[in-house]
Amino acid sequence: MKTHPMKLVTIIGEALAREPLTRLLETAGAHGYTLFTVEGSGAQGRRVADIREFANIQVEVIVPPAVAEELLTALERDFFPRYAMVAYETDVRVVRRDKF
Amino acid sequence: MKTHPMKLVTIIGEALAREPLTRLLETAGAHGYTLFTVEGSGAQGRRVADIREFANIQVEVIVPPAVAEELLTALERDFFPRYAMVAYETDVRVVRRDKF
Amino acid sequence: MKTHPMKLVTIIGEALAREPLTRLLETAGAHGYTLFTVEGSGAQGRRVADIREFANIQVEVIVPPAVAEELLTALERDFFPRYAMVAYETDVRVVRRDKF
Repeated sequence: MKTHPMKLVTIIGEALAREPLTRLLETAGAHGYTLFTVEGSGAQGRRVADIREFANIQVEVIVPPAVAEELLTALERDFFPRYAMVAYETDVRVVRRDKF
Repeated sequence: MKTHPMKLVTIIGEALAREPLTRLLETAGAHGYTLFTVEGSGAQGRRVADIREFANIQVEVIVPPAVAEELLTALERDFFPRYAMVAYETDVRVVRRDKF
Repeated sequence: MKTHPMKLVTIIGEALAREPLTRLLETAGAHGYTLFTVEGSGAQGRRVADIREFANIQVEVIVPPAVAEELLTALERDFFPRYAMVAYETDVRVVRRDKF
């Protein structure tokens, strides 16, 4: 079984960001993503008073490393100042490279 | 805290594949899995016209590396020709090896 | 794009553990977590008769490596004897270290 290295980019943020976020994924060339609702609590900023409950979305997308870099850069520049959001990447290996 | 290397295999596919997929997991010797519903969009095939919205399932299972290899091989051979599906593996470390 | 290494700790367990689990995350200094409901099947113990269907929670939290170690130690000591639960960690890279 030959597998291929890719990046899984996970984005957790307020549901308000959904439309611009999926547009960003398309623009960046992502071939597909999954999205589901999560509960939780997070720190918005650094003051304790900012900690709050939320109902939020978790978006997961698998992309080549260069696209992951591009996505994370755009998220930090255009989304983080505007939305409560975190993003991280994970190394994964996919079965069929042509699907991503 | 001693942790042990395992593989997390993630499978995203149409809900239609649920029954044969969980049977495959049992046959392969997986000791447990989680399953949840996701939204998203994905490319089925390579033509733009094939891109579509879907409500789908995401299945996650932690297994030893040899079982991951077996699972991915069976998925590519028996499931990918039949179902809209992607699969990938991630290196993880578990607390108690005997649970997987 | 500078990213920073962190640990993603994933905990899957019965919903009954939710309150003590979120208290543990706060005590350990986690700055946020996500939580969602999953279906699945798992082996509780080692007898085949113990395999059962469940509706469960999956909690994901990103923390520095030392906090991951502390969390996994506390889970094994205080939660595993009491609740049906598994936990594992994954290496991830985050965009903004100060959020975690």
